[in-house]
Amino acid sequence: MADLKTCAPLTRASVITASELIQDHVHQTPVVTNSTINLIGSIPRTEDELAGTEWMGRTPAKPIMRFWFKCENLQRVGAFKVRGAFHAVEKLKREPGWKEGGGFSKGVATHSSGMYWRPDFIHICRPMTLTEALALAARESGIPAHVVMPSISPASKIAATKGYGASVYFSGSTAPEREQIAAEVIEKTGARLVPPYDHPDIILGQGTVGLELQAQASEMISEAAARGSIQNSPTTPESALPHNGRFPPPGKTRLDAIMAPVSGGGLLSGIALSAEGTGTAVFGAEPSFEGADETRRSYITGERIAQVSSLTIADGLRAPVGVLPWGIMYERGLVKQIFAVTEQEIKKTLKLVLERMKMVVEPSGVVPLAVALWNEDFRSLVEQEGGEDGWDIGLVFSGGNIAVDALAKLYGS
Amino acid sequence: MADLKTCAPLTRASVITASELIQDHVHQTPVVTNSTINLIGSIPRTEDELAGTEWMGRTPAKPIMRFWFKCENLQRVGAFKVRGAFHAVEKLKREPGWKEGGGFSKGVATHSSGMYWRPDFIHICRPMTLTEALALAARESGIPAHVVMPSISPASKIAATKGYGASVYFSGSTAPEREQIAAEVIEKTGARLVPPYDHPDIILGQGTVGLELQAQASEMISEAAARGSIQNSPTTPESALPHNGRFPPPGKTRLDAIMAPVSGGGLLSGIALSAEGTGTAVFGAEPSFEGADETRRSYITGERIAQVSSLTIADGLRAPVGVLPWGIMYERGLVKQIFAVTEQEIKKTLKLVLERMKMVVEPSGVVPLAVALWNEDFRSLVEQEGGEDGWDIGLVFSGGNIAVDALAKLYGS
Repeated sequence: MADLKTCAPLTRASVITASELIQDHVHQTPVVTNSTINLIGSIPRTEDELAGTEWMGRTPAKPIMRFWFKCENLQRVGAFKVRGAFHAVEKLKREPGWKEGGGFSKGVATHSSGMYWRPDFIHICRPMTLTEALALAARESGIPAHVVMPSISPASKIAATKGYGASVYFSGSTAPEREQIAAEVIEKTGARLVPPYDHPDIILGQGTVGLELQAQASEMISEAAARGSIQNSPTTPESALPHNGRFPPPGKTRLDAIMAPVSGGGLLSGIALSAEGTGTAVFGAEPSFEGADETRRSYITGERIAQVSSLTIADGLRAPVGVLPWGIMYERGLVKQIFAVTEQEIKKTLKLVLERMKMVVEPSGVVPLAVALWNEDFRSLVEQEGGEDGWDIGLVFSGGNIAVDALAKLYGS
Repeated sequence: MADLKTCAPLTRASVITASELIQDHVHQTPVVTNSTINLIGSIPRTEDELAGTEWMGRTPAKPIMRFWFKCENLQRVGAFKVRGAFHAVEKLKREPGWKEGGGFSKGVATHSSGMYWRPDFIHICRPMTLTEALALAARESGIPAHVVMPSISPASKIAATKGYGASVYFSGSTAPEREQIAAEVIEKTGARLVPPYDHPDIILGQGTVGLELQAQASEMISEAAARGSIQNSPTTPESALPHNGRFPPPGKTRLDAIMAPVSGGGLLSGIALSAEGTGTAVFGAEPSFEGADETRRSYITGERIAQVSSLTIADGLRAPVGVLPWGIMYERGLVKQIFAVTEQEIKKTLKLVLERMKMVVEPSGVVPLAVALWNEDFRSLVEQEGGEDGWDIGLVFSGGNIAVDALAKLYGS
């Protein structure tokens, strides 16, 4: 991974370059539609439903929404994180002098971070971390990977990282403890440190999700607008119900908005870069449980909140937003707004996705759809801005790593 | 629905005609691949695993298998049954004199059957029945549907049928009781009886699954053989593991076999017709629990067993095979063999499909994959016939109608 000062600039053009670098290593995941879920999204919520929420007494919004789901749950190893990892490795391989300096045998080192670990944590779905993705990316290039993990890491996570061929070293749970062990490993092996998050190469790699989504959805939207219907997506079942606003208006050629989950912010800020100057607005989605909506709250004060400790079931979204992502999202104004949803809203959305779309997505991955279906602030925005034509909204299913026993715990009585 | 004597002959050509009739009403569902599951299938089972099974002490088979999954779980309303239903309705609309006789206002009548109902039954997934599919197909043509159901039918099933716009009439639980009420409804309304199963129009409609699967897989196999790899399917995640035999040998252009679940037999016998004369062998897959493998047992004696009462979790497969399907499958020899699997094998296969493919399939729908992964008789056959080149096997995911609370019951501790 290149030094910060020699990294590519944080621009849409750099995301395009990243996309070319990683295209042989990652899937171009499909974009799918589902008319039942479009229909549910476009039915106003009832006043009864709003009772007891912050929107009690408000007239329910009447948005018309068409969703274009980017299926990173079908990405290699089940999550978007391989994109940033492969990008970091490919950049490193192209760094002048790295190969000549023995880079291929010295390898890369990283430490597991960004994830709020605590031994008593209930981990719903063992989300894929960048650490594991990097171990995989390094192996595919024949590069040794040295990974420092807290000794309290779940056994399944340790096994998965070793399974990708990495050498695992244990440390204490704090960031300084991890960094200390990482420094020792680097000293001993000569490996190059790859920071686990909050780095341009990671952000640009994750941003390729947004680039693909825009291109795929544009093609589908243009076609649907020309046909006067959304072509039956062969990849999800279709409702038989009639539905106003189910197809984009004539001449429509692009997404009005993209919404992605935000945790450390690599994915969301990368997508924001990919959409800069295109006219497509970008929004973030978070769980509200136990303060996990710290990015939303940071937007209110303008001060980045750097600490979160939440047990939300969207356990891929428990980390605070990083410095670089915050700069892109808030300071550069590339992410317009952040919305949050409750645990119950996430659960009922996941149920819809499983039962109606027949797709397995982890709880973190359905948070943007949950916002679109249940958050009246977002829905009012779509009603106002989309009007009678409605909005075409790209939603990122960021990952699909949830075990059936975790599903059983979530939905068991 | 045409009278039996004027029905199309039970041939591959008639399946092709059926396919043209229904193509605007049903999805051409995707065919997907998954290299992890190919890998699992191509690793011999251990002697320990075979201990306690009927294959104890036998040398584990070493088949090489590449799977091509036909995703009817992504079909409209989540199951293949809409194919037969739409075909029956389209045939009826084209029957000379039907329209002139007021067919569009008199409508169609049917009775819920083929399913082994009992009030104390645990219904895992409320499988889509032909009754519901027919109600939908009739509605889309603007034809009234009159449906007779046992009064002990689950409320969810009654609601779904009414939801598709059908008029529902209740009867006792036996076939004669249902047929009696159906006769009264027909007398009163002038509606045309559409038998719920065991009819050429239904069989030919379901057979279109096999026709599409062959065409789609042939294209994918030819391409993979030419490339020397199975192209990363963008619709399921891919394992990073290397795998011998993962791609079809040079010049390969078609499936060696198709395996589908068998219950009433409409799907399996229709697929068998679609493959007649193509060189692709067709097999059936059943659960063995409480005698639900009655088709397999019928094959042993040559006598069709017409009674089953099993509480298998594959609750779409609780019906005995019908007379016409039996004739096609066994008497005409178009289905070579039937294999069965245990409840535990179905459960662990479903877990694999959910966790590795990120796909929601109902227990009945994974039974063919369970056979391929765990039934040593089938695996030995593939080893012998496929040899070092292996076999390309089309497996039908017949439906995806399982609720998350049912999943929670299946996998909860």
